[in-house]
Amino acid sequence: MRNDPTVKIIESDFQAWMGDIQARIESALGRLLPPAHTAPARLHQAMRYATLEGGKRVRPLLVFAAGELAGAAPERVEVAACAVELIHAYSLVHDDLPCMDNDVLRRGKPTVHVEFDQATALLVGDALQSLAFQLLADHRLADEPRAQVEMVKALALAAGSRGMAGGQQIDLESTGKALTLPELEFMHIHKTGALIRAAVTLGAACGQVDAHPKSSLDRYGKAMGLAFQVVDDVLDYDSSTGTLGKTAGKDSRQGKPTYVSTLGLPRARELAGELRTEALAALEDLGASARRLRELADFIVLRKF
Amino acid sequence: MRNDPTVKIIESDFQAWMGDIQARIESALGRLLPPAHTAPARLHQAMRYATLEGGKRVRPLLVFAAGELAGAAPERVEVAACAVELIHAYSLVHDDLPCMDNDVLRRGKPTVHVEFDQATALLVGDALQSLAFQLLADHRLADEPRAQVEMVKALALAAGSRGMAGGQQIDLESTGKALTLPELEFMHIHKTGALIRAAVTLGAACGQVDAHPKSSLDRYGKAMGLAFQVVDDVLDYDSSTGTLGKTAGKDSRQGKPTYVSTLGLPRARELAGELRTEALAALEDLGASARRLRELADFIVLRKF
Repeated sequence: MRNDPTVKIIESDFQAWMGDIQARIESALGRLLPPAHTAPARLHQAMRYATLEGGKRVRPLLVFAAGELAGAAPERVEVAACAVELIHAYSLVHDDLPCMDNDVLRRGKPTVHVEFDQATALLVGDALQSLAFQLLADHRLADEPRAQVEMVKALALAAGSRGMAGGQQIDLESTGKALTLPELEFMHIHKTGALIRAAVTLGAACGQVDAHPKSSLDRYGKAMGLAFQVVDDVLDYDSSTGTLGKTAGKDSRQGKPTYVSTLGLPRARELAGELRTEALAALEDLGASARRLRELADFIVLRKF
Repeated sequence: MRNDPTVKIIESDFQAWMGDIQARIESALGRLLPPAHTAPARLHQAMRYATLEGGKRVRPLLVFAAGELAGAAPERVEVAACAVELIHAYSLVHDDLPCMDNDVLRRGKPTVHVEFDQATALLVGDALQSLAFQLLADHRLADEPRAQVEMVKALALAAGSRGMAGGQQIDLESTGKALTLPELEFMHIHKTGALIRAAVTLGAACGQVDAHPKSSLDRYGKAMGLAFQVVDDVLDYDSSTGTLGKTAGKDSRQGKPTYVSTLGLPRARELAGELRTEALAALEDLGASARRLRELADFIVLRKF
């Protein structure tokens, strides 16, 4: 199968699509973030340092893939994707702070509080969050303003205490504990899953989708959110710091429960595969326009980084 | 003049109005914040601790006063007022952290990181900010959804790097320096002024205002934002910790430039009076419906707490 030339063409087409989106996001973030020389310059420099030249942009890729399904204009999707990525970037800056994970390396570079200082890192996270909502309000992202208000709501819910920030709190409280699988799932549905799900929702909201694809998309987003974390735990367990670009094996050393510590490595790998199957099943009726979403499911679960 | 019975009636009417709004905000915040027992319970308890039973609610009062001018329904104004207050509450929690002002007392109670812990305080601030935007999107606050999108934008701008968070960064960098009056103004237009101005904008946006009152209101909001900070500096200079409910005289001890350190006490007091005059002048053409805004200008500048 791997020698089938069609597979190779599809793969290289996906790689090209992904590269295009990543470049597009980098350029859009560069444009939408305040210029580095605008006062307060140190804060704006640090916001750019935290956000630019970093990461695989998995969430923006999901926003674009869902936008493609919904026939959305790329200029709109791009802004929504940046908003989601800013929330993700802010969460990394705050999670790395000494009072949280106390991490000094992120994406192969010193973390923001190491490169700048803690107070600036705190404000960087705060200001990136505000900027995410500003972007959603400052551009015309949907045909109806009502849909745009719904996008703000979806992102706020995903970021807040019943989403990502809440998941982080559960994470804090779980350190040193053995969690059951349902408890671990509850944590990750919040910590990672909510924002990944919102990425799919926001991408689709830039275009037109009916109620049925909407619920399929949500099922897909939910499965992908968990799959992403399971794969992260597997990679964190068996990667070296060099390939990962962040401190590897840290979660288990810090006594944080992971899918590997809870289920063991073989079962965790298996679960990632099952979640991929579930994500693909959710897209079954959605035809050719769901192609990028399918490819992303493969990419996220089968990735090696 | 102080013995004029009409003045006394007006004053007691304003006091009653203020008490009503404060009670209304307390109750609305209690309802709109996640319940303390909802998971993650510790985060939700800390969010409630940070927000409830606290403060004079100056920003919500301004939202209501501007809402009254615009003939807005109180149910709408209430939600907008809570959103603004949540942004203010989050900023206090983060400002009190050890890496920022390192304060242990706020509104007469231990600060959030003292009562809970630093990581929780960080997440409390993050989640309160998300909740503010969620509130603006989750309720019908204006006749047109377009106006609601504009409210999100106004609040995000006021909170972000070119508003409150930016002002905080300038504040950080100003410690130990003598600022010129224009530099001090630039800092406070961001740090305190932007959110106070947004309070007026959001209140008005819940109802109907034409372009002319809108620009008058903005002039009023700008003057009030600065007046508030000048009065704060004066009070911080000559109050005891007991009446202030927070650590008094701290700014000057920390080497932070204030209006008092920059201008001297007599000139700072004078400036507060001038800003009040400017705020009242902005309302000149707005008739009886601007009454509460006028009363608030007096209240904020002449307050003794």
